[in-house]
Amino acid sequence: MTVSTTPQWLQKVNKKRRNRDEAIQRFFDAEDAASGTLHANGPYNGTTDDATSQETSFDSIADLVGTISAGTLTASELCTAYIKRLTEILFEDALQQANELDCFFKENGRLVGPLHGVPMTLKDQFDIQGYDSTLGYVGRAFKPAQRDCVLVALLRQMGAIIIAKSNLPQSIMWCETENPLFGLTTHPKNTEFTPGGSTGGEGTLLALQGTVVGWGTDIGGSIRIPSHMLGLYGLKPSREYSMKWPENLPMQDMTLCRGNQERCIKSALLSWYVGHACVIIVFHSKIAQDQYYTADGGEDIKRDVAAAGEPYIPHVEALVNKGKPISVYDYWQLNKQKLAAQKRYLDLWNSTKSTTSGKPIDILLCPVMPHSAVPHRKCRWVGYTKVFNFVDYPSVVLPAGEVSMEVDGAAAADMAAYEPRNALDEWNWNLFDLDAMNGMPIGVQIVARRLQEEKALGAAKAVDDILKSAEIPQIKASS
Amino acid sequence: MTVSTTPQWLQKVNKKRRNRDEAIQRFFDAEDAASGTLHANGPYNGTTDDATSQETSFDSIADLVGTISAGTLTASELCTAYIKRLTEILFEDALQQANELDCFFKENGRLVGPLHGVPMTLKDQFDIQGYDSTLGYVGRAFKPAQRDCVLVALLRQMGAIIIAKSNLPQSIMWCETENPLFGLTTHPKNTEFTPGGSTGGEGTLLALQGTVVGWGTDIGGSIRIPSHMLGLYGLKPSREYSMKWPENLPMQDMTLCRGNQERCIKSALLSWYVGHACVIIVFHSKIAQDQYYTADGGEDIKRDVAAAGEPYIPHVEALVNKGKPISVYDYWQLNKQKLAAQKRYLDLWNSTKSTTSGKPIDILLCPVMPHSAVPHRKCRWVGYTKVFNFVDYPSVVLPAGEVSMEVDGAAAADMAAYEPRNALDEWNWNLFDLDAMNGMPIGVQIVARRLQEEKALGAAKAVDDILKSAEIPQIKASS
Repeated sequence: MTVSTTPQWLQKVNKKRRNRDEAIQRFFDAEDAASGTLHANGPYNGTTDDATSQETSFDSIADLVGTISAGTLTASELCTAYIKRLTEILFEDALQQANELDCFFKENGRLVGPLHGVPMTLKDQFDIQGYDSTLGYVGRAFKPAQRDCVLVALLRQMGAIIIAKSNLPQSIMWCETENPLFGLTTHPKNTEFTPGGSTGGEGTLLALQGTVVGWGTDIGGSIRIPSHMLGLYGLKPSREYSMKWPENLPMQDMTLCRGNQERCIKSALLSWYVGHACVIIVFHSKIAQDQYYTADGGEDIKRDVAAAGEPYIPHVEALVNKGKPISVYDYWQLNKQKLAAQKRYLDLWNSTKSTTSGKPIDILLCPVMPHSAVPHRKCRWVGYTKVFNFVDYPSVVLPAGEVSMEVDGAAAADMAAYEPRNALDEWNWNLFDLDAMNGMPIGVQIVARRLQEEKALGAAKAVDDILKSAEIPQIKASS
Repeated sequence: MTVSTTPQWLQKVNKKRRNRDEAIQRFFDAEDAASGTLHANGPYNGTTDDATSQETSFDSIADLVGTISAGTLTASELCTAYIKRLTEILFEDALQQANELDCFFKENGRLVGPLHGVPMTLKDQFDIQGYDSTLGYVGRAFKPAQRDCVLVALLRQMGAIIIAKSNLPQSIMWCETENPLFGLTTHPKNTEFTPGGSTGGEGTLLALQGTVVGWGTDIGGSIRIPSHMLGLYGLKPSREYSMKWPENLPMQDMTLCRGNQERCIKSALLSWYVGHACVIIVFHSKIAQDQYYTADGGEDIKRDVAAAGEPYIPHVEALVNKGKPISVYDYWQLNKQKLAAQKRYLDLWNSTKSTTSGKPIDILLCPVMPHSAVPHRKCRWVGYTKVFNFVDYPSVVLPAGEVSMEVDGAAAADMAAYEPRNALDEWNWNLFDLDAMNGMPIGVQIVARRLQEEKALGAAKAVDDILKSAEIPQIKASS
């Protein structure tokens, strides 16, 4: 008998990654054996790769469900096509569910629900019965959830097929995507660059057409930042939006998607009808906003990291060592300060009332980040996003163009003598690298007042239409 | 110069009470001087007392506003009539506002809003610019609020006139109404009995027709218990109800009222559109529910009591010495437990689904307290009310009869051999005193699932109609 010198946390990591790889391999083996019949009644006759590419080119849930409804594709074929893009492992369950959906459709001639056969993926934070919810912690590996969270239960009821869970930073408390368990998630356009975070796994899957709708969370920008860096649509609702309907629990659950289609947005809204009960802590943001993230002195994160003895990723380590724990009394005072600050922000917004129309501004149009996608571990500041977590306003991010050698080159030349205003601004200025960033997506953020998600979505649609018709550098398909 | 041996906190108490008495006296002096003309164009020709009695007999806001709208009474006359019933001091401001409303009506021939001229009162917890919000603490006397809270601002916009603030227990954390600053509030039917609390001042004013709508808060039963003990209608909404509308802050604000009229309920609903930002702490209830009340180890209360060196009322002293402060991390765990318990409660409710209708129960009909009004300082258990704060379900209390020598005497005789189930039950059993309690109101509680306030109110209306038509001992007018 030999004694392993590998630390226990690393043994867990290796086992977890091996399990994932084997599950993927099992699928490919099975798929190879069945490939003669798998596409027999499908519309595509190219190579498997070409067929997969076409079968995963849907930007619209309506188109996808329409294809199933018309009998052109089965839920099983679609599910198979999307699974090929993924790196996680609900494949067998997903295919079984797809088969059941196909049988139901065959027997009853109708769909089980509005999302019949639509493949979806979830950030590795939502509970799915029988699967881990790691939050990027080694210590949470091999501890499968005992039941589906409310969001997953609802999606299944509507006929959606969960095919995978995706990567996120250790503790979820960072705007890039890295953890000791699954490693680093990279930008599809440049592996040296980050896709953003914390919902970076979903963002990357969407950019690669590996899923149709990705579910994440956003307590400081975690949906909006990957949307911005990857050229996607993303929405962070007001925290209490789901409270508009009875029997719901409030949460920050959110979607990213490739297309700004009605159906996609409707399915996102549907999900808010329910919310979910599976998120770990109800965080808020900060006045000196980080106080809210560290009110427990980082204890929540420290316990999870200590559970397996894994190393910290650098930014999480800095975060847990930043704040001292405060008392519950002081925590209540912080929450009072937050309420007062929210009121002041609302007063400021309302004070923009026009003398002619008598109405304040409808929406704010603002940046998502001070930069496009940047090299790994270079993100430093998320002020443009987390302020809207703090005041609890809904916010939509949509693709607004991309970094352009021509346009931005000329602008950079004009600003050669720019004097940075402070240390952060200087750091941001020095980060700019036109050669490396050329072609990287740039998103724009649209913000409305609390609970005006419909207004934010409507304005996003209007801005999207304008951008698509305008003569400005456009997003190219990422795949 | 003589040195006072009166403790400083007691000096403050004396000054505060003297100010109140002087403000009342100033009003009566002015009113006496003006009484020759005050009722000149009113419909009442009896003595001033008779006129006041009739002018304050409105159970319906609709009737009251209709009277102003028809020109039968002015806002000033009404305001004067209600002020006579009160013990607090916004009288001068109220009368000035009433005059302004009358001028507006005279000049424009229309009302300023749906509550034009309706006198209202507020528990001494809501901020009114220029007046104290004492919460029953001596240390908060002579520290006037710098601005109106959102609820007050909204009520004023709609034309309501705030004529007074009313008594509550020190710290608001008790279901009777006593504090060192203003003393003990007593039951109108028996001064040896408590009217309940914490919104006991409002309840008593309503029972005495001193106001039309009383505004309070309820984090464990503080609206419902006085409603029950005084024969009033009261409603505690879901905590997030006001979040259904944009730009609102969530709160537990609530109304009590004398009549179950549509207008009264509509005005209550209107208020939830706004909520307010002036409550001190967002409390929840408990699993071992009191943990939530004492998560700060009583520090919030201790600081306020220490500010003036005033004595504790006994139950508040017991409360602050009950819980040790816990860490923010543990507080977050408590909140996770609460979410999970809320989910279990919802599952239990939904599991009542009928095999025939396929629907679960619509409402719960249950007691408010294990007893009617009781002698001061005898309340001990509020489990029937605070469970619905904990699960956050809307709850309506309405009058359902009164203690009856005949009915309850017979029932008590039948139960002479009753064996109490535990110590609390035995205490409750021994508290029963038919002679003293005969004629005391008894309320019933109607509960619906979270955010189904309309369902709870609709069911309350239906039950109220049944009770009013049934041959059971009815509430007699308390004045």
